[in-house]
Amino acid sequence: MNFGTVAILGPGLIGGSLALALAERGLARRLMIYARSPRALDEIRLAGIDAELTGNPSEAVSEADVVILCVPIEAMSGLVREFRDALKPGTLVTDVGSVKGSVVRELEPLLEDRALWIGSHPMAGSERGGFAAARPDLFDGATIILTPTKHTPQDARHRAEKFWTALGSNLVTLSPEKHDQMIAAVSHIPHLLAAALVNHAVEFGDLELAAGGFRDTTRVASGSPELWAEILLANDEAVGSQVKQLISQLMLLAAALENTDRAAGKSVLLEMLKAAHDARSQFSAKHLQKP
Amino acid sequence: MNFGTVAILGPGLIGGSLALALAERGLARRLMIYARSPRALDEIRLAGIDAELTGNPSEAVSEADVVILCVPIEAMSGLVREFRDALKPGTLVTDVGSVKGSVVRELEPLLEDRALWIGSHPMAGSERGGFAAARPDLFDGATIILTPTKHTPQDARHRAEKFWTALGSNLVTLSPEKHDQMIAAVSHIPHLLAAALVNHAVEFGDLELAAGGFRDTTRVASGSPELWAEILLANDEAVGSQVKQLISQLMLLAAALENTDRAAGKSVLLEMLKAAHDARSQFSAKHLQKP
Repeated sequence: MNFGTVAILGPGLIGGSLALALAERGLARRLMIYARSPRALDEIRLAGIDAELTGNPSEAVSEADVVILCVPIEAMSGLVREFRDALKPGTLVTDVGSVKGSVVRELEPLLEDRALWIGSHPMAGSERGGFAAARPDLFDGATIILTPTKHTPQDARHRAEKFWTALGSNLVTLSPEKHDQMIAAVSHIPHLLAAALVNHAVEFGDLELAAGGFRDTTRVASGSPELWAEILLANDEAVGSQVKQLISQLMLLAAALENTDRAAGKSVLLEMLKAAHDARSQFSAKHLQKP
Repeated sequence: MNFGTVAILGPGLIGGSLALALAERGLARRLMIYARSPRALDEIRLAGIDAELTGNPSEAVSEADVVILCVPIEAMSGLVREFRDALKPGTLVTDVGSVKGSVVRELEPLLEDRALWIGSHPMAGSERGGFAAARPDLFDGATIILTPTKHTPQDARHRAEKFWTALGSNLVTLSPEKHDQMIAAVSHIPHLLAAALVNHAVEFGDLELAAGGFRDTTRVASGSPELWAEILLANDEAVGSQVKQLISQLMLLAAALENTDRAAGKSVLLEMLKAAHDARSQFSAKHLQKP
């Protein structure tokens, strides 16, 4: 299989991994990489990837059959405005943003008459960002969420499915809104909590005493603060309402800890810990092979 | 160095790892292991550790120079009552419980006239429990918190320091109360939150969509619900008050996400994420070598 000319806009962790994966699997006849900064382009050049590098987004996309937007969410619509007139008809355009409601609302009107546009979200990443953290196997076995709307052409969906499947990914389809709620629960809220836990431990404890459990529970808090502030705000409604749900859950737990009827308190805690244990163990069994 | 006859009461993850570590380093002239259940004793027998096994705690401790209590917190005082009359004078007795205020309050009156007693808490573990998860290097590089009180003999403290240091551990000394507050912050609250996150993700998301970040953030939620309910309740005051502190922090974050002044909201989030990022990265740099 070959996707012709593929343009990757933004060679950070995700874009860089895409470039490596496409090269390793021979899936692109020609690879175009756009980065805004000359330093980022130099980094790719040094890595020796067989690609044409440019600081001009229109040049990157003008002959592309597939365009993948891998820049931060806040930069997407500005970048699309820059290059959309250079797209040739029938080009598949997708993005890899972690939030889909706001991204799709912004990009769809800009792209629906110019390209086969659909949103994608690869559930793969690392607390380390940038091209230096890129790996060719990042998408292998990863889940990709496609977020079509009623305006999405069938062709966009089919071609995006083929593209990600060729990289070894598994596909799930959700509406942009459903995606944002689900991802708030499994990714954005865990991230926010990991950061809150670090600050809590610094204030009330001492990280010198922390061990392996703490290290793993808070690993994602090493992710880029700028990137994550952006993600959380782009999904503010779902994240905000779920923070409140979590607060309710914590209030029940605080009450259980303070319950003068110790047996009743213990039974609430035990039920909650057991439910988590069982769900987590099931998840663990399924995800043993995942990176 | 040699600690003479060492009795390990309760060969689970911690007790079993102690037995393996003492054997590997040749630190005990004679190793006694007590377990309540014949099945647990069979498991140790099959592992071929050079130790004398018994289901009678008095027999395990009667000639011991060092006794390490590795049974669950709730079982400790009952077990101490069973064996304390069999202790020879001058025996060092310590425990490995994750909560120290309640344990010390219960055990000190039972032991202070019979033994050199001091509380210990090894900051090492695993979400997997039991002897099957034991490893001889569990304490190597780990932090051990000693929790002396004004009643603790200097000798107990010095001998406990020598014991843990010989296993490769680093020592920290805290009062039992300070220990419980600190450990609530770096261990008990993270555990409770990891479990709350799993239940939240099941209710509002779909674990099929969860990736590596979620896996690590919630790893500890696979720990034994019974053991953890016991730990959290044994440290109910510190954990309960810190859950409320965390709720306050989350309320500020929810307000930041909902702030109609987007820039102000972003600045709150960014500041919080940056503080966590910096503290976590510093922790990470220090703990790179730790298991």
